[in-house]
Amino acid sequence: MGSLHAGHLALLARARAASACVAASVFVNPLQFRAGEDFERYPRDLAGDRSALEGAGVELLFAPDADAMYPTGFSTAIDPGSVGEAFEGAIRPDHFRGVATVVVKLLDLVTPDVLYVGQKDAQQTAVLRRVVRDLNVPVEIEIVETVRESDGLALSSRNAYLSGQERTAAPTLYRSLRELLAVLERGASKAEAIAVARSALAPAASLDYYDLVDADTFEPLERLRPPAFVLGAARFGSTRLIDNLWVRG
Amino acid sequence: MGSLHAGHLALLARARAASACVAASVFVNPLQFRAGEDFERYPRDLAGDRSALEGAGVELLFAPDADAMYPTGFSTAIDPGSVGEAFEGAIRPDHFRGVATVVVKLLDLVTPDVLYVGQKDAQQTAVLRRVVRDLNVPVEIEIVETVRESDGLALSSRNAYLSGQERTAAPTLYRSLRELLAVLERGASKAEAIAVARSALAPAASLDYYDLVDADTFEPLERLRPPAFVLGAARFGSTRLIDNLWVRG
Repeated sequence: MGSLHAGHLALLARARAASACVAASVFVNPLQFRAGEDFERYPRDLAGDRSALEGAGVELLFAPDADAMYPTGFSTAIDPGSVGEAFEGAIRPDHFRGVATVVVKLLDLVTPDVLYVGQKDAQQTAVLRRVVRDLNVPVEIEIVETVRESDGLALSSRNAYLSGQERTAAPTLYRSLRELLAVLERGASKAEAIAVARSALAPAASLDYYDLVDADTFEPLERLRPPAFVLGAARFGSTRLIDNLWVRG
Repeated sequence: MGSLHAGHLALLARARAASACVAASVFVNPLQFRAGEDFERYPRDLAGDRSALEGAGVELLFAPDADAMYPTGFSTAIDPGSVGEAFEGAIRPDHFRGVATVVVKLLDLVTPDVLYVGQKDAQQTAVLRRVVRDLNVPVEIEIVETVRESDGLALSSRNAYLSGQERTAAPTLYRSLRELLAVLERGASKAEAIAVARSALAPAASLDYYDLVDADTFEPLERLRPPAFVLGAARFGSTRLIDNLWVRG
């Protein structure tokens, strides 16, 4: 969706190292926003993105406008099913339909051999792996680890919305996830681990959820069983942030 | 879906004449049947299909089993939207989701340059054209005219279900559509034309619908405006048949 930061550049660096040709899309996809979400104010900087992509050695930039992607009469949607129904899918109905639909379109148009996606949107990685496998889309998906600020805050275009105070509090989302995982690794139950995590989150933050899920199905787990994600979502003022830890198999 | 008849062979002949290589799939797709429909008793004859395909000069037969197409955990569905909601989509909820999903999978697996589909399933042609355009699937769709018995009955695997009496009555569906179109071509309203068609349908048949629709959107038209389909669906005993006339642009 553009507004590129070091997290996106890590995807490009991984692709660059592995590939003869690297393509990037920049498209703020209206299908994955609902009315009242931040589609209009989502940060956009195509000129800056273009020069960042050139600097990263990208051969092809695909930056269509919405009318080209969704001309009059467009009506098809890809529904990923259960993997996209809980967590972000429950809070943002139709979000993952919008994500799955635009990504399949982009894959059909650009036909890459490998799609690089960021770990930060953990449920998105599971949705895309599910959809690509289910529809036999001929592409391999590689998940690239989340890039963080020095204080642990995961890079996100939405960090730009944070006030100074909110920015100071925001790294507690990551720190609380680390505590959650540490408690799980000691063999404790998920409920105990979540209680510890809650106490590590900044008091001014409003928690949406913590959970532990299977990395493929996104079904909740009661005990740590890799591959898994430890998930967290919280609001800092009016800005909602998500983060996760990836426990590989 | 196999159980090949001369209608399918017309698709293959068209493909054969235009192509260096012809592939066919034979797959009775469980996703496009609901509980209580004829999935279990749908006619299957893979050995006969195989020899018919060989006789037609087909290079590749793809006949997967359902577990290969829908392994455990499969959950993705393609929803074609409004083009698939009325007519067959209203009578068979989720039917066109099942059709769209399996056809996109088959296209991703087989990657043909051209997909040949039969006019007989008119709404299916519109659904597939919509989905392929919307998802940017790199394939061209060619619609091949319906093949009929000498008395006008459109070839269909489901004709095998008809009793002798039902078989005698069944061609009145086609004849009534011809009358419907003739009345429309004289400039009459759709309501007038449908009244004439009803009177031409065998009294023992139970009409589901007649209508006139735009060939691309499947939205009802009040007057003839090509490209359009004149549609009919009726039951002869327990067997439901559909037929249509294609009025090209």
